[in-house]
Amino acid sequence: MTDLPTLDALRHRDATDVLAAFRSEFVLPEGMIYFDGNSLGPAPKEALSELEQAARQEWSQDLIRSWNSANWFQLPLELGDRIGAIIGAAAGQVAVSDSTSINIFKALSAALSLRPGRGTILAEASSFPTDLYIAEGLVATRPGLTLRLEGVDGARIEEMLDDDVAVVLLNHVNYRSGSLLDMAALTAKIHAAGALVIWDLCHSAGAVPIELDGAHADFAVGCSYKYLNGGPGAPAFLYAATRHHAELSQPLSGWWGHARPFAFETRYDAHQGIAKFLCGTQPILSLRALKGALAMWERVDMAALRAKSQSLTDLFIALVENRCAGHGLVLQTTRDRDLRGSQVSFSHPEAYPVMQALIERNVIGDFRAPDVLRFGFTPLYLSHEDVWNAVEILREVLDSGIWREPRFAARSAVT
Amino acid sequence: MTDLPTLDALRHRDATDVLAAFRSEFVLPEGMIYFDGNSLGPAPKEALSELEQAARQEWSQDLIRSWNSANWFQLPLELGDRIGAIIGAAAGQVAVSDSTSINIFKALSAALSLRPGRGTILAEASSFPTDLYIAEGLVATRPGLTLRLEGVDGARIEEMLDDDVAVVLLNHVNYRSGSLLDMAALTAKIHAAGALVIWDLCHSAGAVPIELDGAHADFAVGCSYKYLNGGPGAPAFLYAATRHHAELSQPLSGWWGHARPFAFETRYDAHQGIAKFLCGTQPILSLRALKGALAMWERVDMAALRAKSQSLTDLFIALVENRCAGHGLVLQTTRDRDLRGSQVSFSHPEAYPVMQALIERNVIGDFRAPDVLRFGFTPLYLSHEDVWNAVEILREVLDSGIWREPRFAARSAVT
Repeated sequence: MTDLPTLDALRHRDATDVLAAFRSEFVLPEGMIYFDGNSLGPAPKEALSELEQAARQEWSQDLIRSWNSANWFQLPLELGDRIGAIIGAAAGQVAVSDSTSINIFKALSAALSLRPGRGTILAEASSFPTDLYIAEGLVATRPGLTLRLEGVDGARIEEMLDDDVAVVLLNHVNYRSGSLLDMAALTAKIHAAGALVIWDLCHSAGAVPIELDGAHADFAVGCSYKYLNGGPGAPAFLYAATRHHAELSQPLSGWWGHARPFAFETRYDAHQGIAKFLCGTQPILSLRALKGALAMWERVDMAALRAKSQSLTDLFIALVENRCAGHGLVLQTTRDRDLRGSQVSFSHPEAYPVMQALIERNVIGDFRAPDVLRFGFTPLYLSHEDVWNAVEILREVLDSGIWREPRFAARSAVT
Repeated sequence: MTDLPTLDALRHRDATDVLAAFRSEFVLPEGMIYFDGNSLGPAPKEALSELEQAARQEWSQDLIRSWNSANWFQLPLELGDRIGAIIGAAAGQVAVSDSTSINIFKALSAALSLRPGRGTILAEASSFPTDLYIAEGLVATRPGLTLRLEGVDGARIEEMLDDDVAVVLLNHVNYRSGSLLDMAALTAKIHAAGALVIWDLCHSAGAVPIELDGAHADFAVGCSYKYLNGGPGAPAFLYAATRHHAELSQPLSGWWGHARPFAFETRYDAHQGIAKFLCGTQPILSLRALKGALAMWERVDMAALRAKSQSLTDLFIALVENRCAGHGLVLQTTRDRDLRGSQVSFSHPEAYPVMQALIERNVIGDFRAPDVLRFGFTPLYLSHEDVWNAVEILREVLDSGIWREPRFAARSAVT
């Protein structure tokens, strides 16, 4: 390829990068090139300091009074609005609580409550599996409901829509391939068939510009520990459009979703706003770290983020295909940058040991069964020079064949 | 009352207290007497150091590798076994995850899956409300199910049992009155009627000796942020007896409950053990603090804990009724120490401002609507002298009438 940039040219791009200053807001281990921000984002310094404040002052010294004085009870909606600003949702439509899986259960239940005459849930078989497992669990307890996966393709959803479809659950960016769906166009098609849509934003929130309100989306869910850097297992979020709030119901009706939680009434009376999606007491320490992580996002230009993300992923594809040719890597992500999230996946027959050898050299991506090497690109802390260096290390791993050493083949409990 | 002990006698009791050394393992603000460990336990020093290790090393430096190297993925079952040891459950029957509310939903669903021909859930109207709200939410999505609250009294549960009752949800210690139910006797009565039982241990775990296995309990749930001191909103636990594991199902079937979560299969195949109650990714920072908090429990003698708890609550009742007589306080907790948890409640027509005035004087209890002053007694850090001093301060608040000052009447968002 004659159009490959030189390292000098890349350094020039990095020198003029408007997002470059964000790198200093993260703790990044010396010498590591981290392509796993789409699995676990690194620690923002502000997240660590907020966590320490929460632990050492609010819990240790102020104790029970912090529910008021530190606004602990308001964190789910306060952080919801902050995430809302990142995903194109006006205030009052996002709640942060529980896990993505639990929130999918709530959103599916809510959608079904709004479409009582319909009995089909559509989801792509290529979805992140927990989405499917939750839908399967819900369907198993509701006679008359059907879950359809086979043949469902988000990009051609209209082929599967009929007047029994109540709700469609779509992954905005596919966790394995990195494909990005057209939210506004698909939402319109789903609405035209009288159905509702739930967007799973786990691999797009904080990675690509999102306009939930602009797309007239109904529901969305996502996690906060990938591109939003909230910390391992940080609570997830749920978006529900205001127009649906009054009418919908969901069965995980714990006391935090009550209109008057501290009146301790015996009967449930749902809050009329987004708080009706809250359930039980939330893990405050994890929420406080997330609060710190979200602070930087007010200063992030999402158009600049998207432009840099596309520049990094384009570069990675071009460099890998040039430098690592002949080693059996096959691109699994689209070459069309407008249909790509902020990740690039390559398949390789021995993807697991290759990734282990890379990790040993401090280039961190991850393996996804059965044969995928997955690389996430976070424009807030990765540079073009990082990409260059990582590809050089990948080339050395492949050229040397070191990944064939038996120690790289041993599977960990969590792969 | 002629049998009131003197302060000297109380100091002597404290000097021979076998649990006294635990106080130094907590961070307790200078001058505070904390009777709210049944709402938010104070910070164990080990919890703070584990949290710091999790944030500064595991997240910040080791990043994604900590899922393996720090055993993050195993925390729900590892901590489950630790809590199991505190509540009389052999290994492999307790999982730590999500909130108490969510776990009640799972346990109710599981119990119903084991009693398919039965359609009634029994719960006491005096339960902590979220238990009722969750049962109500579940019933609303399952035609043919009934939730009965009115007239249900745990202590006389046999009067409500019939062959349509699938499951009984009971609060082991009542959150408001502090009454303690007889787990073994009531479980036997419920089983005799062919039903299953779920014990809510929120106000008893870590406060009284519990033998779930010994009582042949079916299910239990509870939180870890009260007497277990896991930190604000720390994840909750769920117990399911091994004999039920193979047969039961529950609909919150997220990927952490899959037999092979990292195989990324499209169909759910439930883990055959307690892990089938896991759902989505858990808040690791909060779990790591909890891990630190649980470390001390290996050294706690539960019989000594119970004896001291009864000594403290007996003393509090005797002192309040003697020193604060004539001020309208009415004991709401039983005088029978064997039917009492580790808390004492008094009603007062102006309970809210009285508690606010006490809190201003660094005696921390809490108010429960509409008229209850609630005091929790944690034997690991409270002394008999603390109880004496707190009652003296309560007496001053009541004698002086300072609680009538308008500033104590203003309600906080969270009361």
